[in-house]
Amino acid sequence: MRIAKAVITAAAPGQQTLPLQSVVDRHGQDRTALQLILQEAVDAGAEEICMVISPNYADAYRQAAGEHAGRLCFTEQDTPRGYGHALHSAKAFVGNEPFLHLVGDHLYLSRTNESCAAQLVKMAQSESCSVSAVQATHERRLPYFGAISAKRISQRNDVYEINKVIEKPTPTLAEQELIVAGLRSSHYLCLFGLHVLSPLVFEILDNQIQSNDGKSPVLLSPALSALAQQERYFALEVQGSRYNIGVKYGLLMAQLALSLSGDDRDQILTELVELVASRNDRA
Amino acid sequence: MRIAKAVITAAAPGQQTLPLQSVVDRHGQDRTALQLILQEAVDAGAEEICMVISPNYADAYRQAAGEHAGRLCFTEQDTPRGYGHALHSAKAFVGNEPFLHLVGDHLYLSRTNESCAAQLVKMAQSESCSVSAVQATHERRLPYFGAISAKRISQRNDVYEINKVIEKPTPTLAEQELIVAGLRSSHYLCLFGLHVLSPLVFEILDNQIQSNDGKSPVLLSPALSALAQQERYFALEVQGSRYNIGVKYGLLMAQLALSLSGDDRDQILTELVELVASRNDRA
Repeated sequence: MRIAKAVITAAAPGQQTLPLQSVVDRHGQDRTALQLILQEAVDAGAEEICMVISPNYADAYRQAAGEHAGRLCFTEQDTPRGYGHALHSAKAFVGNEPFLHLVGDHLYLSRTNESCAAQLVKMAQSESCSVSAVQATHERRLPYFGAISAKRISQRNDVYEINKVIEKPTPTLAEQELIVAGLRSSHYLCLFGLHVLSPLVFEILDNQIQSNDGKSPVLLSPALSALAQQERYFALEVQGSRYNIGVKYGLLMAQLALSLSGDDRDQILTELVELVASRNDRA
Repeated sequence: MRIAKAVITAAAPGQQTLPLQSVVDRHGQDRTALQLILQEAVDAGAEEICMVISPNYADAYRQAAGEHAGRLCFTEQDTPRGYGHALHSAKAFVGNEPFLHLVGDHLYLSRTNESCAAQLVKMAQSESCSVSAVQATHERRLPYFGAISAKRISQRNDVYEINKVIEKPTPTLAEQELIVAGLRSSHYLCLFGLHVLSPLVFEILDNQIQSNDGKSPVLLSPALSALAQQERYFALEVQGSRYNIGVKYGLLMAQLALSLSGDDRDQILTELVELVASRNDRA
C-alpha cells in the first residue's frame, strides 16, 4: 500500500495563524510550525501535501512552508462547517488512495528515531488498513479529544482494532463504552491528531454532509466510527507525544519539549534555572 | 512636554513576522507580540502609533493589532537601508514633537507597576529632554547592542547624561571610551530598544542619509551620538528587562519570563518541572 499524499487541516476559526508561528526545532534551527508539520509528513513518505485552509491564507502559508513549499497545494474551506467538512474538502486532491492526515495545530515529538507519522504509515502499510494514532489519556482530558473503543491485537501491546469513535465523551459515557483492557485506571485511548485513512472516509463524509442540517458542524469522529464498521481500522499507540499549540501555553510547552529533547538541551536547562531563580521579573 | 506619538520599527529583513507571533500575556490572555508592544506604548500615553514596515505587511499587522488597531498607521520602508533610515521614514508622522520609539522585535517586562516605556516617558517629561532606556550589560554581549558613554547625574543612581553612542563597540573600544563609573566590572550601559527622542533626530538623520554612500546602512547610533552633542540627552536604567524575540530562543525566553512573572506562575512552574523531569521526549 502506497501512501504518497497527505492532508493537513488548518481552517478552524481562530486557529489559522498557528502554522505560521515560529519555533526553534530540535537542532536549533528557526522554523515555522508549518515547516515542522510538513517535515513530519515528508519524513513519513508524503510526496504531495494538501492543506485545507480559510480563504486568503494561501500566501502566508506558502511563505511559511520553507523547503517543502513545492509539495504543497491548497484547498479553501469557504465557511467553517466542522472538522469533517474541512477534511472532506481534500477529497478531489486525495482521489482513491489511502492518505496521511495531520492537523495544523499539533506538533509531534517522537521518542524514537522514527517520526510519529512514519510509525503510523509503517503500520498502515504492513496491515493494509486505516490506522489512527492514539494516546492513553486521563479521563479529565476527555473534553478535548475523540476517544475510541477498541480491542487489543494479540501479540502487540500497542496496537488495537477500533470498534467505535466518540467525540469528546463524558466520563460516564467513556466508562460505559470505551474501557480498553490493560490501560491504567481512568485512562482511555484518545486520538492523537494523526491518521492514515482509507478513501472510504470521503464517501462516509459525503453522506454525513448530505444528511447534515446545515446548522451543526460535520464532525470527523462519527465518520471514523462508521469507517470502523465497514473496514478493518487499527489504532497505534505511537512512541511519542503530541503538543496542541492551539491551547493556552500550548506553544510554550511544545517549544520547551522540543528544546529539551534537542541539541540545545543543556543551554535551555541553564537559562531555565536562571530565569526561575531570578525574581527580578516578578512585578 | 507632551509625548502623544509613538513609532515602532519593524521593517528589518527577517524580522517582519516577529510582531505577529502569539504569546500569552501575564494575565494568561492570548496576545500577539504586536499587541504587547502597542500596549506598552499606550500605557505610556501614546495616542497615535506609526509602524515602519516592509511593503505588504500592513494587513497582517492590522489584524494582529487587536484593540489598539485604531491608533495605528503604517509607513513603508521600500528598501532596507538600515535602522536609522527606517526610523526616518516616520518623520512626516512625528512632525515637530518629541516621540516615543519602540522596536518591533523586543518585549519589555517591568519590575514595577509602571511599564518600562512609562518610566521613560515620565523622566523625559520631568527633564524636558530626550531619554533612552539603558541596561548594564556584560561586555560579552556588546556585539548585540549600541552602548553609551555617559556621566551619572548627581542624586540619582539610575540616570545618566549621554555623551556618545557607539554601535556594537569592540571590548577594547568600550574600555577606552565607554566606562561608566559605578557599574559592575566589565559592564557597560547598552541601549534597551526604548527611547523618547526629540524631533531633532530627524534633522540629524536627514544629513546622514544625504551623506550616505547608498551602500552602507544608515544606523541610528551615530544619529543618537550627534543628538547628544546638540541637546541634553539622558539615559535611564529602567526597572525591568527587555527580551529580544528576534534571536534564537528569544521568543521562548520572553514567554517564560512573562509567564513566570504573571498570574499563572505556579501552573507554569509545575508543568516545567514535569517536562524537565520527563525523559520521555528525548530521542
